Amino acid sequence: MANLHPYCIINGSLQPRSTAAIGLDDMALNRGYGVFDFFKVMQGIPMHLDAHLKRLFHSAQHMHLPIDEDVERWKSLIQQLLNANHVQDAGVKILVTAGYAPNGYSIASPNIIITTQPLPAKKEDDYAKGIAVITHEYQREMPDVKSINYTRGIWLLPQIAAAGASDVLYYANGLLTESPRSNVFVVNVEGVLLTPEHNMLKGITRQQVLSIASQHVSVECTYVTIADLRNAAEVFITSTTKGILPVTTIDGMPVGNGQPGKVTLELMQALHQYEMELLANT
Amino acid sequence: MANLHPYCIINGSLQPRSTAAIGLDDMALNRGYGVFDFFKVMQGIPMHLDAHLKRLFHSAQHMHLPIDEDVERWKSLIQQLLNANHVQDAGVKILVTAGYAPNGYSIASPNIIITTQPLPAKKEDDYAKGIAVITHEYQREMPDVKSINYTRGIWLLPQIAAAGASDVLYYANGLLTESPRSNVFVVNVEGVLLTPEHNMLKGITRQQVLSIASQHVSVECTYVTIADLRNAAEVFITSTTKGILPVTTIDGMPVGNGQPGKVTLELMQALHQYEMELLANT
Repeated sequence: MANLHPYCIINGSLQPRSTAAIGLDDMALNRGYGVFDFFKVMQGIPMHLDAHLKRLFHSAQHMHLPIDEDVERWKSLIQQLLNANHVQDAGVKILVTAGYAPNGYSIASPNIIITTQPLPAKKEDDYAKGIAVITHEYQREMPDVKSINYTRGIWLLPQIAAAGASDVLYYANGLLTESPRSNVFVVNVEGVLLTPEHNMLKGITRQQVLSIASQHVSVECTYVTIADLRNAAEVFITSTTKGILPVTTIDGMPVGNGQPGKVTLELMQALHQYEMELLANT
Repeated sequence: MANLHPYCIINGSLQPRSTAAIGLDDMALNRGYGVFDFFKVMQGIPMHLDAHLKRLFHSAQHMHLPIDEDVERWKSLIQQLLNANHVQDAGVKILVTAGYAPNGYSIASPNIIITTQPLPAKKEDDYAKGIAVITHEYQREMPDVKSINYTRGIWLLPQIAAAGASDVLYYANGLLTESPRSNVFVVNVEGVLLTPEHNMLKGITRQQVLSIASQHVSVECTYVTIADLRNAAEVFITSTTKGILPVTTIDGMPVGNGQPGKVTLELMQALHQYEMELLANT
């Protein structure tokens, strides 16, 4: 935690990050009950903030967590934190827990914790060569909610490492769904870009990729089978921190020719350009 | 939180409970990654502590959480807390989280939090009349691990309340498994006591009940179907805090004649006597 930003906001109040803490009765700590969202700030601009707030409100509503839905109030709170931390480029996390329940088993007034953190440096090598992943059968509960429950993904880390991989793709009932912290796209041998549409979290970066991809390639949001994945010409994952990251090995087998593919590289470039234009126009 | 006991123990160190807190980077708080156990203290005696510690070690091992397994050291730490809090009767909770992960997504050195709390007063009425429950299809991940993930049980609370019930029984693939914080027993019309043996947490109170029940009734740890539940003569749930609690209404339908049954009442009495003897002999 060497490079902590100086401040965070807990329940609306600015606090020094290094001593900020949550009481022992919090329901996320004790019962794993909470939701969150995470977005990046580039050149001082919170990226796709409306979409992230909308998703946070959806997650909270679905989990019966009563939170303020005044977008302007949220934006002003976030801006206050960015100003206090003097950050131009950062990740911002909003965590909403079920609060301090007197009986240890109910939903209380939520604890809302907003933190900023340096964005992890992108590993150039991963983008140049693509990453290796394993597959694992698993269906997240409440898949359209960004809940804090990452038990399976973290539990799998030793298995992922043992396979010489760096991430995992989930599937259920023969259908590809998502990666613990990313969405997944497949380019099939016909050159069509496929991505799962059901039983997964609707990523904000996924949405950006979908909105730009149709200028480059045919796109289908659909059911993507494990066979589609095994026979793919190209595979990549998307997330707020990763952007578009090529996947070139799945369960020890190369994807296509084992190199990041043409469509993937084109979309990486297009996404970068899209973000630059967005920043220029904000 | 009016009646907090004065002290808790965090990572081996005694701290005032009212100001004790956990840093914002804890992995239970952020990723729902943690396990716990809970036992009661009666007349100063930690009840079935060896069994609870054994289960805690199992939970931690399964979740790749590295913790000390020196039983004597744990007992001495717990005794230190009981002494500091001057409690004779209490519940003790041991929470083990995946600690402060520098990257926010890995298993670090666990945070171990030991707290004591007053045992909730038993609602006489519930024991005299039995409680109402609903049923819900759900299978916990890693069912033999006492993880902190109670998302489903808490998420169901409004639905439970709307049905005029006070708890829920989970089933999966037509088989009864457990209640979020209790095990479940069924007395069938032949007078045989049945309890699920698979895909559920092996409760310590369940084990006590099994060890005394065979003196009163035929017992089968087996697959218990939803039909077994619907046709049951008697149903009860068991937990450390509840002991044996009769269930007399399921999904709005009475169990048997709608009153706590003969076997249930006999076992409630037997469990009470068993605990009293245990205390007398400790």
